Amino acid sequence: MNASTHQAHPLPAALIAALRQRFSDKFSTALVVREQHGRDESSFAAPPPAAVVFTESTQDVADAVKLAGEFSVPVIPFGVGTSLEGHVLAIQGGISVDVSRMNQVQAINAEDLTVTVQAGVTRKQLNEAVKSTGLFFPIDPGADATLGGMSATRASGTNAVRYGTMRENVLALEVVSASGEVIRTGTRAKKSSAGYDLTRLLVGSEGTLGVITEVTVKLYPLPEAISAAICSFPSIEAAVRTTIQIIQLGIPIARVELIDSNTVRMVNNHSKLQLKEEPLLLMEFHGSPASVKEQAELVQEIAAGFGGTAFEWATTPEERTRLWTARHNAYFAAIQSRPGCRAISTDTCVPISRLADCLLDSVIEADASGIPYFLVGHVGDGNFHFGYLIDPDKPEERELAEKLNHSLVTRALSLEGTCTGEHGVGLHKMDFLVSEAGEGAVEMMRTIKRALDPKNIMNPGKIFRL
Amino acid sequence: MNASTHQAHPLPAALIAALRQRFSDKFSTALVVREQHGRDESSFAAPPPAAVVFTESTQDVADAVKLAGEFSVPVIPFGVGTSLEGHVLAIQGGISVDVSRMNQVQAINAEDLTVTVQAGVTRKQLNEAVKSTGLFFPIDPGADATLGGMSATRASGTNAVRYGTMRENVLALEVVSASGEVIRTGTRAKKSSAGYDLTRLLVGSEGTLGVITEVTVKLYPLPEAISAAICSFPSIEAAVRTTIQIIQLGIPIARVELIDSNTVRMVNNHSKLQLKEEPLLLMEFHGSPASVKEQAELVQEIAAGFGGTAFEWATTPEERTRLWTARHNAYFAAIQSRPGCRAISTDTCVPISRLADCLLDSVIEADASGIPYFLVGHVGDGNFHFGYLIDPDKPEERELAEKLNHSLVTRALSLEGTCTGEHGVGLHKMDFLVSEAGEGAVEMMRTIKRALDPKNIMNPGKIFRL
Repeated sequence: MNASTHQAHPLPAALIAALRQRFSDKFSTALVVREQHGRDESSFAAPPPAAVVFTESTQDVADAVKLAGEFSVPVIPFGVGTSLEGHVLAIQGGISVDVSRMNQVQAINAEDLTVTVQAGVTRKQLNEAVKSTGLFFPIDPGADATLGGMSATRASGTNAVRYGTMRENVLALEVVSASGEVIRTGTRAKKSSAGYDLTRLLVGSEGTLGVITEVTVKLYPLPEAISAAICSFPSIEAAVRTTIQIIQLGIPIARVELIDSNTVRMVNNHSKLQLKEEPLLLMEFHGSPASVKEQAELVQEIAAGFGGTAFEWATTPEERTRLWTARHNAYFAAIQSRPGCRAISTDTCVPISRLADCLLDSVIEADASGIPYFLVGHVGDGNFHFGYLIDPDKPEERELAEKLNHSLVTRALSLEGTCTGEHGVGLHKMDFLVSEAGEGAVEMMRTIKRALDPKNIMNPGKIFRL
Repeated sequence: MNASTHQAHPLPAALIAALRQRFSDKFSTALVVREQHGRDESSFAAPPPAAVVFTESTQDVADAVKLAGEFSVPVIPFGVGTSLEGHVLAIQGGISVDVSRMNQVQAINAEDLTVTVQAGVTRKQLNEAVKSTGLFFPIDPGADATLGGMSATRASGTNAVRYGTMRENVLALEVVSASGEVIRTGTRAKKSSAGYDLTRLLVGSEGTLGVITEVTVKLYPLPEAISAAICSFPSIEAAVRTTIQIIQLGIPIARVELIDSNTVRMVNNHSKLQLKEEPLLLMEFHGSPASVKEQAELVQEIAAGFGGTAFEWATTPEERTRLWTARHNAYFAAIQSRPGCRAISTDTCVPISRLADCLLDSVIEADASGIPYFLVGHVGDGNFHFGYLIDPDKPEERELAEKLNHSLVTRALSLEGTCTGEHGVGLHKMDFLVSEAGEGAVEMMRTIKRALDPKNIMNPGKIFRL
């Protein structure tokens, strides 16, 4: 029996019988199904969940949670499994509640710039659904994640520098609480002072306080003009300093992504591109034609000041898609550059003025270590990711990567930053969270968790140790 | 003994002695001091707190809360007393913790567009302090409130349509918890997925979960160009429809305020202005000169389509200040229009497409009732305020105002809105909160409150009944 079939926490027979009766063929204990729900894009391994329920309605979720609660068995919400921090891993056993069939777009309120979807709708599906309205949903973490998962991890991505993160863009939620009750938080009004902000408490709670079943988010008018550009730089430092200046001048750039020369090479190989193998910034400008022109001119001027060259423009949707697809495939390009490897991703985010200090020292450390890595960053937000490419069968490589990450996080915290800009704490950053927030704040989180989930059935073992 | 001197909840003598020993002349039980801390801008009356502590440091706050906790005595945080919902009223007795002396601007990080201040700093003081950096803090609820109070009520105001509310603009907090522990939430990084969003939970918690002692907020570059304009309309409906179209077209207007003809008349009298006594929109545009010009032209075109006339521009800072001061004085202008009256303020906020439905029917009802009122609105956010001007000695007038408010809130909730866009629940909207959020969500709030404040000492009796 290997790690992935071993059942550390078998379900009580009475619970299996009750789930089977309630869910019939929406319930599965087949190994292949469980294994699909027992892994994500992280480098962690754990035994798969004991069973999977494919919920098709909020009532399904409520009933699954209630049954699990009767037997004090863990419930792990599952969307499409793109977590990078082990959020969906059944480390304490239990039932994976797969909401991917809950994929209805329920209400497009174009006149209010809002849309309400079931938790299993993915961001690409959402954008397809609202396309004809002239609106779009900007949050783009790269992966085609579900809105439920993006809410649960407070995701962001390439557009956040202009449009914010899930924190700013979720207006309202429907959630099944740990007791199996259906709760609604927030309204479609743009602002509210009506009691505790349960919406923001649940956004980023990583499935530990309930299962998100419905999400209402903001939409934005498709910009009249969009323009994307690539600019190569003689050094990472030059690219970073250009970014800092763009942000400090308040230029409303929509995207500004750093890709280091390592990663450019990997992306060229993977996506058959001929990008200059130097550090580059991939940028996008949104607005009226006049505003886009104005932004672009300013940015070109700043970049030139730091030795930026080869400003290449992509204004047709096809060219832009090609560039952004290459960016989004950086992770896979990197993984494929070292067959059999897994990536250990860092996710620090610091105030923009500290970005150079934080990033450049970490590049020096990574280079000195000899570990293969890729480096990409939502640098306009002060957020960047190293992906250390380790051989999962070599513990010393994992150890080295963890050491580099530890050093990076320590640096970011000393610069008033955070250990995780957008991936969440999951399994991996619990100690970092205590260093960052302090024992008092983490104990406040635990107190909330214990109060709202007294049996500790909601995705236990994530964010903090209880 | 009248209502304001009667002590329903005297402090234990041992607590008084302990507070006097710890705080000496920063502690007062003088009636005049207590009375200053026993009222706000709401129409409610309650006996004053039993004592006031003027805290000068976070440690002072922590010690006051700990001592109160030992005796299970309520703690009511106090800034400058501009609440409109009775937040500072000592309805269950206790100690007013006045943080107004904690008024240091602690760190201006201009290069990161952030500033950290003690909770007693007011928004005008903050803007004065950052003036030389070319940055500003846009949240403007009208009153010169403290940053602590604005955080506690999730305030917003005239600039929120462009810059968001305290929800979007508070990055980090220092808070004294109910147990007297000092907690830090958030960091200066622009985004984070590090655990539960305690910052957002505390923003809007109305002092019921702890005392906010320090606030880190975002700053924005002063716009290169600012232009303000007044436009009169033949009807409230025309002004509202103009607003809806501005928002739906995604024009990044910085302010768009409705003032009805009643209120224009009051403001003219109070501020010696000669505004045309018709419904008007007061607008402001921020951006590059080109962008401001573009926005203004579009808005003029839209307004003209709805019969808007007399577009008057104010581009000098002095002219703008005159206009916005008049707007901010609307409340006082209204109060003075009926000597001895108190205003019962409504605060509904609805999705922008529902604004006309919500507002126009409420105007008809208010007119039919014969009650004097003023009507102003942050209409770009779907938020507006009726102020029903009642004689506090005539219970039938209060009853009529409450009836109108009830009808308005019922309408707003049926239109997917909220009972309070920015003032908070306080004493007055507890039943509305249950109607809006549902018993399940309010019970989730109560569960959090009970867990984080088991003795119920933090501003008890606000937001919900425990």
